[in-house]
Amino acid sequence: MKIALVGNGNVASHLYEALKNKTEVYQVNSRTMENFPKGCDIAVLCVKDDAISEVSEKINELSPVIVHTSGSVSMDVLSPFASHYGVMYPLQTFTKGIEIPYNEIPFFIEASDKETEGKITEIASLISENINFCDSDRRKKLHLASVFACNFTNALFGISFDILKENEFSTDDIKPLIKQTVSKLDILSPKEAQTGPAKRNDIKVMQAHLDLLSNNSDLKEIYRILSSHISGT
Amino acid sequence: MKIALVGNGNVASHLYEALKNKTEVYQVNSRTMENFPKGCDIAVLCVKDDAISEVSEKINELSPVIVHTSGSVSMDVLSPFASHYGVMYPLQTFTKGIEIPYNEIPFFIEASDKETEGKITEIASLISENINFCDSDRRKKLHLASVFACNFTNALFGISFDILKENEFSTDDIKPLIKQTVSKLDILSPKEAQTGPAKRNDIKVMQAHLDLLSNNSDLKEIYRILSSHISGT
Repeated sequence: MKIALVGNGNVASHLYEALKNKTEVYQVNSRTMENFPKGCDIAVLCVKDDAISEVSEKINELSPVIVHTSGSVSMDVLSPFASHYGVMYPLQTFTKGIEIPYNEIPFFIEASDKETEGKITEIASLISENINFCDSDRRKKLHLASVFACNFTNALFGISFDILKENEFSTDDIKPLIKQTVSKLDILSPKEAQTGPAKRNDIKVMQAHLDLLSNNSDLKEIYRILSSHISGT
Repeated sequence: MKIALVGNGNVASHLYEALKNKTEVYQVNSRTMENFPKGCDIAVLCVKDDAISEVSEKINELSPVIVHTSGSVSMDVLSPFASHYGVMYPLQTFTKGIEIPYNEIPFFIEASDKETEGKITEIASLISENINFCDSDRRKKLHLASVFACNFTNALFGISFDILKENEFSTDDIKPLIKQTVSKLDILSPKEAQTGPAKRNDIKVMQAHLDLLSNNSDLKEIYRILSSHISGT
C-alpha cells in the first residue's frame, strides 16, 4: 500500500515515524501538497478539524480513499470528496520530541465500506496491536472522555505547579505523587482510589484551602466544584 | 533511635515497611496504644488530622518527642503535649498493597527546635534522599497544590472512566494517554503541554461536548469552568 500522510504537525510526524520502515509512506505538506505520491492508495489526513474539508477537496483526485484521524469530526464530512473514506483515530497525545510506544496506541476505526475498513485496519495494524471499531457518535464520547482524562488533568497540573512555584517549591517534588496517582489506576478504580479533604468531607481543611485561594476567584470556583463533585454534596 | 509509629492506616504501614530494616521501629495501634515501646525516643503520628490532639494527649508521657505527618495541620497543635515536637510530611499518596519507591518520597520537615529537627531529619533520611524544610504555612500551600495534582486529577479520571464505561469502551484504552500526559511533564511545562478544544478555543467542539453532557449539570459545570480556565476566557 502506498500511503500519503497529509499534515505538518505532530500527529503526521509520529505516524510517519511509526510507519516508515513498514510500508511505502510519504509525509505530505498539507498546504502545498508537496511530496504527494503518484498512484497513492490511501490518504490519511492529520490536519486540524477545521481543515479536513478543505484539504480533502484538494486531494479529491489524488487518492481513491480518504481517511481522517480526528476524534471529534464525523466520518461523513469526507463523503463529498471520496467514494471510499473512513476514520483512523489514535487515542494518544503526540508531542514533538517525546517518544511513544506506538504499538500500545489504541486505534478506533470507522469506514464507509468493508473494503475500506480492511485497508484502514491493515495500516493501523502496522503500528499497533490495539485496534477497535467505533462509529462517529461513540468516537465523540471517547474524545470527550479523553478531554477529561488528558486536557483537564493537564490544566490541574498547571494550577498545582503555579501554586508550587509561587511558594518556592520545586515542581519536581510533586511528580512522584502524580505518578503514584496514575499507577493506582492499574489496581483500583478512581472511586476506590479517591483520597483527600473532599473525600473525607473535611470542611475545615477545605475552608482553609479556599481562604488560601481567596485572591483568585477562578481557582476558588474550580476547587469548590471539584470538591463538591467528590464529596457528592 | 527507638521509634513509635502510631496509626493503623496506610501511612503508618508504609512508613513501617520503609523503616523496619533500618532502625528500631514499632507500629502502634492508635486506639489501644498496644505495642508502644518502653523508652521510646520519638513518636510519629500517622493518624487522621482530627485525631492528632487526642492521640498526642494519650502519649504525652510515653514519648519525649511527638511528630505528626499531616500536610494541613499546624505544628503548634502539638505544643500542649510535648516540649519537643515537629512535623514530618511525606508528599505521597499511600495505598494498601501498592509499592512505592520510598527513597524518592519528598519529605517536608518542621521542628520546635534544632535538636528535634536533627532527629526528624535522621528518621526521614533513613527512608528518602529528598529531605526539605518548610514551616506550617508553606506546608499548607504544598498540601493545596497536592489536592489539585492528585485528588482533583483522580476525580477527573473517575469522570472519564464513567463516560467510557457508559459507552462500552475499555478503561484500559485511555491509560496510555494518561501516562503520556504525565510523561510530558518531564519535558514541557503544563502550559506548553496543554492541548485540546479549550486550548484551541474550538467553540464548535466544546459546544458538542456540552450537548453530550446535557443530562448531567454537574459535569457540564466542571467542563465549562475548566475549559474557560484553559482558554483564558
